[in-house]
Amino acid sequence: MIILGIDPGTAIVGYGVISTTIPKHLKQDRNQKPKVLDFGCITTTQFNTAPERLKIIHEEVCALIKKHQPDIMSVENLFFFKNFKTAMPVSQAKGVILLAGAQHHLPIFEFTPLQVKMTVVGYGRAEKKQVQEMTKQLLDLSGFDLKKKSRKKDDASDALGVALCAVLSSKFQILN
Amino acid sequence: MIILGIDPGTAIVGYGVISTTIPKHLKQDRNQKPKVLDFGCITTTQFNTAPERLKIIHEEVCALIKKHQPDIMSVENLFFFKNFKTAMPVSQAKGVILLAGAQHHLPIFEFTPLQVKMTVVGYGRAEKKQVQEMTKQLLDLSGFDLKKKSRKKDDASDALGVALCAVLSSKFQILN
Repeated sequence: MIILGIDPGTAIVGYGVISTTIPKHLKQDRNQKPKVLDFGCITTTQFNTAPERLKIIHEEVCALIKKHQPDIMSVENLFFFKNFKTAMPVSQAKGVILLAGAQHHLPIFEFTPLQVKMTVVGYGRAEKKQVQEMTKQLLDLSGFDLKKKSRKKDDASDALGVALCAVLSSKFQILN
Repeated sequence: MIILGIDPGTAIVGYGVISTTIPKHLKQDRNQKPKVLDFGCITTTQFNTAPERLKIIHEEVCALIKKHQPDIMSVENLFFFKNFKTAMPVSQAKGVILLAGAQHHLPIFEFTPLQVKMTVVGYGRAEKKQVQEMTKQLLDLSGFDLKKKSRKKDDASDALGVALCAVLSSKFQILN
């Protein structure tokens, strides 16, 4: 099973793709970590209008779905914002991300930052860094040069976290 | 010039299409009212998931654009919400509406309810009913049986108001 994790935003949308498919000869190996297939960021600039930003985000998410053919999408839920002015454009971006999932008939799961922390670290008040470190520990990142991928790593790491949260949560059965 | 006005929502998205194109033999008639070409509502139900609702809204807005070939889109801006839980899904819906506009290369204008009131009624504290009444007065609704179209008229009327606001505001020149 392939999971596309998304951390919504307007300037930066983090994404992470992981696979839980375990090769037949390793089926007994329960310790096999989910493999990271891809991660990175979709970026838009302040020179783009709001509708242009939404179009870029929608196109890029559709391209990721076409490329990796995920079985499910896992999206970070915006649970609380201090500031409505931030919440509104991020919710608009989340709208076109959910739309891309629906257009490709993907089951979509949403997790709040609290749920990600509880599921990945086991502690709701975990620091962002702890979640990122644990995400790295629990995933098979072989094949990636983390130094090279360092730009905007935080958003991509959050997206891998929310993808991992979907794997670890009991909301669905892993079929492969 | 044809303007598509949209009043975003999740269960009900109001729409109104008006035309400012004045037939050649009437060019001198400055009192010619913008003509209403269409109005109504896109509806989704609570039985639809959030992504399904967004897909329906996006498809229907795209269908309206294809049918009426508007030159611009005018969208009500969500300026303030008492409650973040309401603001989030409505912003998501607005996201897919703006996306539909951007995908069809439409210039998009956004107006807050206050701007609509100021522009249409000339008074920022106008009641909703006053805006609706003034919208009806300022538009040519001939050809529509208002009684027949009465269901969810409020949302459609708000959408006509935001379309009219684009016509009346000096933000752009009317070319036709």
